[in-house]
Amino acid sequence: MELVETMTPLAASNARLKELRKLSRRSERSERRLFLADGPKAVEGALGVPDCVVEVFATPTAAEQYAGLLAAAPTVTLVDDRAMAGLSDSVTPAGVVALCRFLEPSLVEEGRQARPDTTPRLVAVCADVRDPGNAGTVIRCADAAGADAVVLAGDSVDRYNPKTIRASVGSVFHLPVTTERDPFAAVAAARAAGLTVLAADMDGESLFETDLTGPTAWMFGNEAWGLPDALRGAADRVVSIPIYGRAESLNLSTAAAVCLYASARAQRA
Amino acid sequence: MELVETMTPLAASNARLKELRKLSRRSERSERRLFLADGPKAVEGALGVPDCVVEVFATPTAAEQYAGLLAAAPTVTLVDDRAMAGLSDSVTPAGVVALCRFLEPSLVEEGRQARPDTTPRLVAVCADVRDPGNAGTVIRCADAAGADAVVLAGDSVDRYNPKTIRASVGSVFHLPVTTERDPFAAVAAARAAGLTVLAADMDGESLFETDLTGPTAWMFGNEAWGLPDALRGAADRVVSIPIYGRAESLNLSTAAAVCLYASARAQRA
Repeated sequence: MELVETMTPLAASNARLKELRKLSRRSERSERRLFLADGPKAVEGALGVPDCVVEVFATPTAAEQYAGLLAAAPTVTLVDDRAMAGLSDSVTPAGVVALCRFLEPSLVEEGRQARPDTTPRLVAVCADVRDPGNAGTVIRCADAAGADAVVLAGDSVDRYNPKTIRASVGSVFHLPVTTERDPFAAVAAARAAGLTVLAADMDGESLFETDLTGPTAWMFGNEAWGLPDALRGAADRVVSIPIYGRAESLNLSTAAAVCLYASARAQRA
Repeated sequence: MELVETMTPLAASNARLKELRKLSRRSERSERRLFLADGPKAVEGALGVPDCVVEVFATPTAAEQYAGLLAAAPTVTLVDDRAMAGLSDSVTPAGVVALCRFLEPSLVEEGRQARPDTTPRLVAVCADVRDPGNAGTVIRCADAAGADAVVLAGDSVDRYNPKTIRASVGSVFHLPVTTERDPFAAVAAARAAGLTVLAADMDGESLFETDLTGPTAWMFGNEAWGLPDALRGAADRVVSIPIYGRAESLNLSTAAAVCLYASARAQRA
């Protein structure tokens, strides 16, 4: 780490910081292939991926508090509190933000290369998941359940959305998260990879009566309207979490957690 | 339903509406023993509890859209869009809000009175859960998993918080949700009711190797710091969701969903 200790913390008016604030827009991120990872968990995750972090920005206080973490950063630039508020997506910024290069699946997968069998066993496909917090939480659940990848399909939020990264609590850096504009292509790719595609939706067979021991891709739909009929039809099976009480349904992230863990448990039994 | 069709919709400046807006504060709710249920799912849930709804407020547009729902309301009062925005907690109000009396567990439980065995089998205890959205989502998961009750213990958010009600999507009206300031008293009461108290926390025995067939009270801690050591110690066992990937943990509501459904599945197998 090269900590520019002697410098005056950069102010929000700094021209370079102004440019970085534009990375809150998806179009700007896509064009420059850069994004911001906000908070210590995200920065830690980013630093764990080779060649991902360009530079870390920290307030003087946070630079001290997270000195251990920042020791792994290529460069640390001090910024003042107002500048940090501009870079951070959080209402109460933790004081550290990493400027990151877009993740190449191959980099994220580097750790997996050592594993000779690269056949995926568990994948989560989000179809038209619009809420960035939901997408981030699904990525975190998929990571926790030991999934091999997450696919953000259709009109889903992008994985570099600051709220997605924050909700994933570092998990966006732990497993490959890919984008596929055509959700039917995502289904076809999953099937070609040997995965049975299960649509998580209402009115399907019970999750607890489904054989989940084989390689599985779970497909989750939009938080408001679920999966469109055609996409449900493209799945191998439609599977439902049984509702034992009077709730109509679970929300997206809790449903994903129950389904992904049911698979992980069956596959590892 | 008595729909005051002929009236001019009330404006935000109306004195009675001004008083109702104060119900966004917990102290005001506690003093008047009244709360607001926002949106069609919450209004539907409230209308399902005898003597709960005092009056429903609707914009003229929503009164038409939800005419079927509002047919069950004792009184419907039309309000204009600005007045609705003041009553609703939502950024995009659906246009219907019910003024409700505090729920007496006996009322909520009325449907259960028919069931002669009133021994609880599955209960969720939230200890110091501060985020109202999290509490509402746990209540929704508990309802879906067929739990008998939810206890908001310690410094947890109250069940009448508008965000809790919204996140519960009506479930706060489906099962008894009680408050217990002393979390140790909640543990003692659960045990006295014949429930084994399981603390959901890190470094416990694996969820998937725990016998979950008996009557169980799950205890979930604060979203940031989990369960205090003393409260962990008060539980019969500490149980952890196994983490198969690189995530450190799951968030509160997804963890609750996985635990509550593991119990429901084991108890109903």
